[in-house]
Amino acid sequence: MPSENRLILDRDDQGVLRVTLNDVSRRNALSEAMLADLDALLRSAGQDAEVRVIVLAANGPAFCAGHDLKELTVARAAPDRGRAYFAKIMGMCAGVMQAIVACPKPVIAEVSGIATAAGCQLVASCDLAVAAETAKFSTPGVHIGLFCSTPMVALSRNVAPKHAMEMLLAGDMIPAARAAEMGLVNRAVPPEALTETTMELARKIASKSSMTLATGKRAFYAQREMPLAEAYEYAAAVMVENMMAQDAEEGISAFIQKRSPEWQDK
Amino acid sequence: MPSENRLILDRDDQGVLRVTLNDVSRRNALSEAMLADLDALLRSAGQDAEVRVIVLAANGPAFCAGHDLKELTVARAAPDRGRAYFAKIMGMCAGVMQAIVACPKPVIAEVSGIATAAGCQLVASCDLAVAAETAKFSTPGVHIGLFCSTPMVALSRNVAPKHAMEMLLAGDMIPAARAAEMGLVNRAVPPEALTETTMELARKIASKSSMTLATGKRAFYAQREMPLAEAYEYAAAVMVENMMAQDAEEGISAFIQKRSPEWQDK
Amino acid sequence: MPSENRLILDRDDQGVLRVTLNDVSRRNALSEAMLADLDALLRSAGQDAEVRVIVLAANGPAFCAGHDLKELTVARAAPDRGRAYFAKIMGMCAGVMQAIVACPKPVIAEVSGIATAAGCQLVASCDLAVAAETAKFSTPGVHIGLFCSTPMVALSRNVAPKHAMEMLLAGDMIPAARAAEMGLVNRAVPPEALTETTMELARKIASKSSMTLATGKRAFYAQREMPLAEAYEYAAAVMVENMMAQDAEEGISAFIQKRSPEWQDK
Repeated sequence: MPSENRLILDRDDQGVLRVTLNDVSRRNALSEAMLADLDALLRSAGQDAEVRVIVLAANGPAFCAGHDLKELTVARAAPDRGRAYFAKIMGMCAGVMQAIVACPKPVIAEVSGIATAAGCQLVASCDLAVAAETAKFSTPGVHIGLFCSTPMVALSRNVAPKHAMEMLLAGDMIPAARAAEMGLVNRAVPPEALTETTMELARKIASKSSMTLATGKRAFYAQREMPLAEAYEYAAAVMVENMMAQDAEEGISAFIQKRSPEWQDK
Repeated sequence: MPSENRLILDRDDQGVLRVTLNDVSRRNALSEAMLADLDALLRSAGQDAEVRVIVLAANGPAFCAGHDLKELTVARAAPDRGRAYFAKIMGMCAGVMQAIVACPKPVIAEVSGIATAAGCQLVASCDLAVAAETAKFSTPGVHIGLFCSTPMVALSRNVAPKHAMEMLLAGDMIPAARAAEMGLVNRAVPPEALTETTMELARKIASKSSMTLATGKRAFYAQREMPLAEAYEYAAAVMVENMMAQDAEEGISAFIQKRSPEWQDK
Repeated sequence: MPSENRLILDRDDQGVLRVTLNDVSRRNALSEAMLADLDALLRSAGQDAEVRVIVLAANGPAFCAGHDLKELTVARAAPDRGRAYFAKIMGMCAGVMQAIVACPKPVIAEVSGIATAAGCQLVASCDLAVAAETAKFSTPGVHIGLFCSTPMVALSRNVAPKHAMEMLLAGDMIPAARAAEMGLVNRAVPPEALTETTMELARKIASKSSMTLATGKRAFYAQREMPLAEAYEYAAAVMVENMMAQDAEEGISAFIQKRSPEWQDK
């Protein structure tokens, strides 16, 4: 009975693993259980040779509502007023976000509904994101006295600082078209075209060499944090290793010979 | 007689401190006196519990024309040809810009007119900026042999590098609509709607917990300069402390109970 | 017979050096010979007082197709399967890109056609770029098993991360208008207006003090990699030195006296 699972997994025959958040009654909140499931999923799919691209989708009107505030509030009854539990949950959440970045497979968010707080962070943390025009985004922590400080780590690495600051300080909902302009998502499409657009993009990427995608994704995030000269030294070394790999030799030969490449990992 | 002051201060009953640059005959240039006044204002308002948000506005056709070139030129008569004075003024100016960033209260620029050189930097240094559609922006130092090197510190942290470079190398005036596209300001509005739009945004932010705003603003600029893993470790710790604060407990309880929160600092 | 040269050089009387890539049959690929020519050109033009601005243009339908894949493939016959040669070429290419950044003269790309892989990197590495509306951009390495890891060093420092990632993971062609929105180029203009628009921009910049341009360009890239406080300390010191220079004294005097400045280096 997959509809009772927090995560519904669907694989197609082209290497796309579709992961659907399915805790609809909690608006797909990042509860302790949901964070644990996402973490396990990302780690196993990252090592699964059959998985070439991951799509993160959601059931229900909310893509993801962020932390589970009721669960966090229950922990206030503890002798430490919840401190240890809050630290555990914040650490798990930051771990999931970084697991997306560290995952050797590209991860694409398919944002069908509202993405708020850590749910907005989830979108920002994915490599790519496609949104329904009806989707909305916000980091509304200021409304409840809890600034979206971890969401802003991802948000401020995706959009211009004044755009990020406005979302964080005012807490307003941003429509998908504006999120696309800002760079928070790659594009906004009509809701009825969302899944098709996202899956088409996922399958296009899944047709590439997984070794090449993993090499490039890792290098992208690594070089980003380096000064220019160091980034070039690092990336040039990555290029040399990539050139020595079978898939590059095959891909370049196929290109010169005007035929389709046959990837080693397929 | 406030109209004779370089800075006109207006407080409303919602915690918005409106600071109006009022050295109209010098186009609100950042003279030594103006820099000293701004520095003192930012430091005192930053510690003033009655101030929740600061709006930086201006009288006259220029929002701010940058450094006071006549004052700088007078200093060339000194035995050191002005070097010590230039160092003093550049240090004071960089200090004011960093005082905006360090100020625990959100600072919003209300840009009614032309913002050039260090005046453009002043806009870029604010957390948020709203501009009249008739406002214009430039970093025109190249026209006078003095590259806008300190303005570019703020500019290049707000807009894409090719956009910043074009402003710096060509020195052209940028209309407000383009500045909004580039991310230099949050939005451009009709001149007659400027003050209302800015004050509405300021009051919305002023209605939040000041503790939460201060926590978030400090964390925003701190995490921005860290690598991803360090940023997450830091931000997760900030979230835990924020969760332990009275305003977060109250805000989350109010949210769950569907009532308005009562902030401790109000 | 300049049309047989890989680089065609044209100087005008206003200090603009126009460098046209002219290896049309190879789509202006960055072959070993082309990289060597570009490196030598950038280093000599950088020291040439007659050169105030460099425009990088191209003959033929491709602005630049990136690495010369046939040349790289030939090297696979070596006992080390090409490793040493690949390292040499990747190092030369990263060197050319960094020579553009290090060149004291502003470098403007005039993108008339397709710019792919390291050709897209070449555009991203220039200080400014003007594109024909018919120009297209891509980082298509994933199609051939060779991720565009060095191009992404420049690309990811110019555009938002999700935009960069989409180009890198999907490898699709981006039209010039989209490249302008993303910040990869400054603007897209009708093809018939491309050279005029670019040369007009080049001449405007060439009319400025070369000392000032060199000071500012160096400071731009240097401060970008510093934390905010360090960047301000550095930039304020740059401003003081700039104030002490003859061209700033002349430029500021001319401005105050409402006359045109006479630069020392002209």
